[in-house]
Amino acid sequence: MADKPVKKVVLAYSGGLDTSIILKWLETEYGAEVVTFTADLGQGEELGPARDKALLLGVKPENIFIEDLREEFVRDYVFPMFRANTVYEGQYLLGTSIARPLIAKKQIEIARAVGADAVCHGATGKGNDQVRFELGYYALEPDIRVIAPWREWNFKSREALLDFAEKHQIPISKDKRGEAPFSVDANLLHSSSEGKVLEDPAVEAPEFVHMRTIAPEDAPDTPTVFTLDFERGDPVAIDGQTLSPAALLARLNELGHDNGVGRLDLVENRFVGMKSRGVYETPGGTILLAAHRGMESITLDRGSMHLKDELMPKYASLVYNGFWFAPEREMLQAAIDHSQAMVSGQVRVKLYKGNVSIIGRTSPYSLYDQELVTFEEGAVAYDHRDAAGFIKLNALRLRVKANRDKRLAG
Amino acid sequence: MADKPVKKVVLAYSGGLDTSIILKWLETEYGAEVVTFTADLGQGEELGPARDKALLLGVKPENIFIEDLREEFVRDYVFPMFRANTVYEGQYLLGTSIARPLIAKKQIEIARAVGADAVCHGATGKGNDQVRFELGYYALEPDIRVIAPWREWNFKSREALLDFAEKHQIPISKDKRGEAPFSVDANLLHSSSEGKVLEDPAVEAPEFVHMRTIAPEDAPDTPTVFTLDFERGDPVAIDGQTLSPAALLARLNELGHDNGVGRLDLVENRFVGMKSRGVYETPGGTILLAAHRGMESITLDRGSMHLKDELMPKYASLVYNGFWFAPEREMLQAAIDHSQAMVSGQVRVKLYKGNVSIIGRTSPYSLYDQELVTFEEGAVAYDHRDAAGFIKLNALRLRVKANRDKRLAG
Amino acid sequence: MADKPVKKVVLAYSGGLDTSIILKWLETEYGAEVVTFTADLGQGEELGPARDKALLLGVKPENIFIEDLREEFVRDYVFPMFRANTVYEGQYLLGTSIARPLIAKKQIEIARAVGADAVCHGATGKGNDQVRFELGYYALEPDIRVIAPWREWNFKSREALLDFAEKHQIPISKDKRGEAPFSVDANLLHSSSEGKVLEDPAVEAPEFVHMRTIAPEDAPDTPTVFTLDFERGDPVAIDGQTLSPAALLARLNELGHDNGVGRLDLVENRFVGMKSRGVYETPGGTILLAAHRGMESITLDRGSMHLKDELMPKYASLVYNGFWFAPEREMLQAAIDHSQAMVSGQVRVKLYKGNVSIIGRTSPYSLYDQELVTFEEGAVAYDHRDAAGFIKLNALRLRVKANRDKRLAG
Amino acid sequence: MADKPVKKVVLAYSGGLDTSIILKWLETEYGAEVVTFTADLGQGEELGPARDKALLLGVKPENIFIEDLREEFVRDYVFPMFRANTVYEGQYLLGTSIARPLIAKKQIEIARAVGADAVCHGATGKGNDQVRFELGYYALEPDIRVIAPWREWNFKSREALLDFAEKHQIPISKDKRGEAPFSVDANLLHSSSEGKVLEDPAVEAPEFVHMRTIAPEDAPDTPTVFTLDFERGDPVAIDGQTLSPAALLARLNELGHDNGVGRLDLVENRFVGMKSRGVYETPGGTILLAAHRGMESITLDRGSMHLKDELMPKYASLVYNGFWFAPEREMLQAAIDHSQAMVSGQVRVKLYKGNVSIIGRTSPYSLYDQELVTFEEGAVAYDHRDAAGFIKLNALRLRVKANRDKRLAG
Repeated sequence: MADKPVKKVVLAYSGGLDTSIILKWLETEYGAEVVTFTADLGQGEELGPARDKALLLGVKPENIFIEDLREEFVRDYVFPMFRANTVYEGQYLLGTSIARPLIAKKQIEIARAVGADAVCHGATGKGNDQVRFELGYYALEPDIRVIAPWREWNFKSREALLDFAEKHQIPISKDKRGEAPFSVDANLLHSSSEGKVLEDPAVEAPEFVHMRTIAPEDAPDTPTVFTLDFERGDPVAIDGQTLSPAALLARLNELGHDNGVGRLDLVENRFVGMKSRGVYETPGGTILLAAHRGMESITLDRGSMHLKDELMPKYASLVYNGFWFAPEREMLQAAIDHSQAMVSGQVRVKLYKGNVSIIGRTSPYSLYDQELVTFEEGAVAYDHRDAAGFIKLNALRLRVKANRDKRLAG
Repeated sequence: MADKPVKKVVLAYSGGLDTSIILKWLETEYGAEVVTFTADLGQGEELGPARDKALLLGVKPENIFIEDLREEFVRDYVFPMFRANTVYEGQYLLGTSIARPLIAKKQIEIARAVGADAVCHGATGKGNDQVRFELGYYALEPDIRVIAPWREWNFKSREALLDFAEKHQIPISKDKRGEAPFSVDANLLHSSSEGKVLEDPAVEAPEFVHMRTIAPEDAPDTPTVFTLDFERGDPVAIDGQTLSPAALLARLNELGHDNGVGRLDLVENRFVGMKSRGVYETPGGTILLAAHRGMESITLDRGSMHLKDELMPKYASLVYNGFWFAPEREMLQAAIDHSQAMVSGQVRVKLYKGNVSIIGRTSPYSLYDQELVTFEEGAVAYDHRDAAGFIKLNALRLRVKANRDKRLAG
Repeated sequence: MADKPVKKVVLAYSGGLDTSIILKWLETEYGAEVVTFTADLGQGEELGPARDKALLLGVKPENIFIEDLREEFVRDYVFPMFRANTVYEGQYLLGTSIARPLIAKKQIEIARAVGADAVCHGATGKGNDQVRFELGYYALEPDIRVIAPWREWNFKSREALLDFAEKHQIPISKDKRGEAPFSVDANLLHSSSEGKVLEDPAVEAPEFVHMRTIAPEDAPDTPTVFTLDFERGDPVAIDGQTLSPAALLARLNELGHDNGVGRLDLVENRFVGMKSRGVYETPGGTILLAAHRGMESITLDRGSMHLKDELMPKYASLVYNGFWFAPEREMLQAAIDHSQAMVSGQVRVKLYKGNVSIIGRTSPYSLYDQELVTFEEGAVAYDHRDAAGFIKLNALRLRVKANRDKRLAG
Repeated sequence: MADKPVKKVVLAYSGGLDTSIILKWLETEYGAEVVTFTADLGQGEELGPARDKALLLGVKPENIFIEDLREEFVRDYVFPMFRANTVYEGQYLLGTSIARPLIAKKQIEIARAVGADAVCHGATGKGNDQVRFELGYYALEPDIRVIAPWREWNFKSREALLDFAEKHQIPISKDKRGEAPFSVDANLLHSSSEGKVLEDPAVEAPEFVHMRTIAPEDAPDTPTVFTLDFERGDPVAIDGQTLSPAALLARLNELGHDNGVGRLDLVENRFVGMKSRGVYETPGGTILLAAHRGMESITLDRGSMHLKDELMPKYASLVYNGFWFAPEREMLQAAIDHSQAMVSGQVRVKLYKGNVSIIGRTSPYSLYDQELVTFEEGAVAYDHRDAAGFIKLNALRLRVKANRDKRLAG
């Protein structure tokens, strides 16, 4: 496998030190022409410098691809996932996981466009992201050559990497000289921090690892209240103002940030088999999850809701493990999306120092309205005697069993 | 079946106006001897007055049963349920649901002891509680006669009920003259409010419906931090002080109360088929859920945790619907309890104005320790190249499928 | 609710004695105008006599509805269900259950067309069919009045019913004078027998209860082999001959009948809470299930197949319990149908004295082909060393756990 | 990891050519002392020759371990699995999968006893068995060194292997000179055939691959009828004669063999990602599955049965994938075993030319008895009017939804 030469490789390129080293290593190790792909997923960094850096490192202008994927990311990945009320291991909102399939997809599209025979990512060999990238690549282009430098190269230390960088005239900013106190991933949905200062799960995460939210303690003393409109399961407007998917999530992020909403300190189980500890900040997503549940609470039938709740853990594992493009994820999505046709209406949300409360819900599609609730001479009548029969038949098998048990005991 | 006369009936008696009316109605309607059962489940009321009231209403002293069930309630019902991280419809901690089976069980035990041929509860005909009580009765004593006055009697209005009360010299406190602005259920795990002022889900719940928690806004400006010790999935000590189950939950309730923790405003789906809106306060339970998840996060294997997450929605529905004594609930409990053998250790909990954060976890049973995480020359080695093979074989079916799809498209 | 008069009622009318009695009872008891609906679902009876009987009993010609539903039944109900490989309690192919929603739907459509305010069925009060009919009615027309004579009338015995029939000049064939030795349901998918001679589950079902199959012992001594073509999960041709859904199922029934295929003697759990024993004959369906699984075995990805297998028991319960028109059944169907896009190709089937064997499968959509299996220098390569990594990472959590356990024991 | 020398290795040794080659290869490649372990799992071969062969190849007598595991295999692996009615992908009874964990466990026990630092198996690099062996090893002894020769060595062809064998004086029987037309696995539960002549799933499996059953066509023209007694979910007696687990399964195998029962021709999905085609013969297991379901049908409550059906696919995948010793398999087993406490009684089984029919069931623990079924003035009464209420409340959410839909359409 390692023997066939690589001609052209599409690298997921951030413009940072590590992927710049990878860029040069691909040239020196594989003798490959490198195509860089830099995506704006809302990580909060300018893309211009990435282009400059690639040019500086000798990448041909026609080999530099830069794309703003924020709308596609939120519309086709984040929102579908939130339709399922997805949480991994009861808590994690999958902010990192959900970004990988889209990057993989774009790399494959570029590889096809430029005639590249390989793709490359900068994820390490112990994490989940390598799996998510590569399952994406393979699902979309089964015979693509995948290069995972962190699993392949022989650099034994950070120093060896920096030596290589210097040797190839890769600029190294001062703060990259030492080891970072923790590592970071970020996109429009969330930011995560892990490693080093966070490695001991017994020790509280320091305040400085947080970047997307202020502490609840620092948030305003008065609540922020606003409305969120939904259409077919997706949020479409804040306080009556219609916003594009990315703009809406960005606005929710601001609201969450300012009110200290969306922090999570978690020990999770990685797909590759070990436990790891991370600090996640998902301000807008945390609001969205609560609001979506609130919207569903009046528009979704019990049967649909309970089925969704039963399917969710599997859906979450599929996303976490990188199986976004697997047919079983698509099957689950088909079921989930089917349920959302009437999840439309408005919820009122209150944020206060880390708390998200749903304080009101209305919908033209409501399955809850007072006429039905009081159940007096309305369209749907409720006869108390029905409850007796309902209970009796639900109890029947329990009674038969209890009689059997008594018969045997007696 | 409705025709056989009832000789002696065990009534779940609170001492309040409604169950006092039921008491008299059982005598007048059925000509039955009434045995009262009043339980302390931590609802926060003295039991002495209930005894006095029963005596006043003419119940024979030997027919008055009063029992403090707080320890049994927490140990055998609340804690087993929390081992499963149980939430109904993503949010509700089942505080009302979990109390009913125990009351039903005690009524049946008393019925056997006193030779009663019937049991009676005061739950209404539109709610879930009638189901929970009666499924409990039938599962334990299949041929017991069940009397549900709210489904049977002909009182057409609150006035008619009060007339009956006056006629039978049942004392009516002043505040019971009018309609209550909402109805309440409470026990050591939670309190709930529903009806009337809460019926419109578009309208924010008024502050005065809350009784177990202060508002986050009113909570202290400095966090409260403490440790919680677990043994085999159950909490056993706070800040190092070993407490009985009920004492521990009571202490968590205080901590939650003081920090505005555990409020929930929810529209839920009842087993009897309609949606209803309730406000729940579960201060201690909210803390316990977060802490238990934190404890499991370092002591539970991924396979166990994910299986638990997949089973939980069904478990929650069974508890909510009143199937506590059903064999499938017991099967699920057997699986859950099997997983908890090593869920022992300590978590550090931080409470602040409505937020519960787990800021530290330690355990002699930890599956996370730094030696394993860094995975250098440790007991369990991790070879980066393993990840390549892991990914390749996980991808294989996706690649075969992608090749099929390409073959067909090409 | 029982008090409002009924003006016009649509009766599911078979033309038999029981539904003829119901017809007259509706007139005498409710003073209602009766509209009869008789459907051909492939039960194997002429519909002409039903029309004659209705006329004889005084039903106005414009109130007599007769419809051949065989194609709709197979295409829109039977085939979608078989896409899910549906079996209830591991064995039952749901032949009765699947027919009820369609009849209910047609009754509601007729009720709307003729302005009827009620519908009526002839199912008894202890069975599942009453539930299936009525859930269908209510799901489609929530305020329809439902009349279930067997739960309402006061006939205490078979004799009383016959007296009523005689009094109203309903013809009674000789064989209906005594009690039938068992009761029967039949449609194009199956026939069932239950009751009386079958009530003791310890006693073998007598040969004479079977009507759709000959005994395996009586089947030919040489196998019957044929091909079955599938398109998108549904069978479309036998031995190369394209057939309509109903014609295809009818032909499979013949093939099954002649080879003694599809008998089942079962004790099942009814939705209404009791166990019952039935003998089912589903000759074509038994073949179809095996053939569909065979077709899926080479065209369906593992992830899709396993997800389908996990969802199936719930799907089966929903169909069995009468929740065909419930949103959660539709959600599951959406997921299942999504998986069937490439379940196309051909299987070879061998029938022999009760056995169904799939002896060959081919498909242009196959995920199995020899080039892939041998995995030599093919499109998708397989490196043995990948297996080592795959195993190591799958084992990692088990090793961590085993080390923990050793540490504690040591 | 490959560099540390191996001192002593416990080899799963069959006495056949392949594992004999492995034996010598371990000595020459690793310079390791080889300990052989040969188990009788009912594969139908004498163990004496394996001992002789090991001695001949120079293994020290004290390093030869031979054990009859048939009783342990059936009692602790086969029967627990059948309690769950386990089938993989709707059809496969997991005969190969279930044997691997026990062999792995014994190898580890021997490794501890003799102080070996490695274990070795003869499974190939494309199959499931390597996974099952190694997950077993690692789960029980996390730091054991595992040697998988088929993934490691450089023999490029069958000839190269045979050359090695000759060079090391390993006897080669004549029929091993050429390539076998298919490969075989066998134990007391089943035999499997795969590869070569079976590789094309379009082609019928030839008769000669079968070894455990005669063809249905060759089976007697008269049925065989017998009784099977169960205790707590496990079979204990045939025709009233109590038998040990292994003896009972062996007897069922004979009965199945003679009646052409238990053949399966299947394309399945391997854990390692590809599809494969196999022919399985599980005569006794096929009978046992049907009989166990028959026994459960009268002794198991609906809730338990349905929960078991829902859990089964996951349980089957765990066993198939080699996760027998994983905590989530044990959790599921705890739930399943809890359900079997009263699965005791007797079923009558009829075998006829490939068919297994359950023709009678009795049990002192029956939940079905005629008194309950007819439900006349018995212990558990059934009121037809209860069904009305049962249906009304089950329909309520559907009616509310239908009203919503009408309101929106209107």
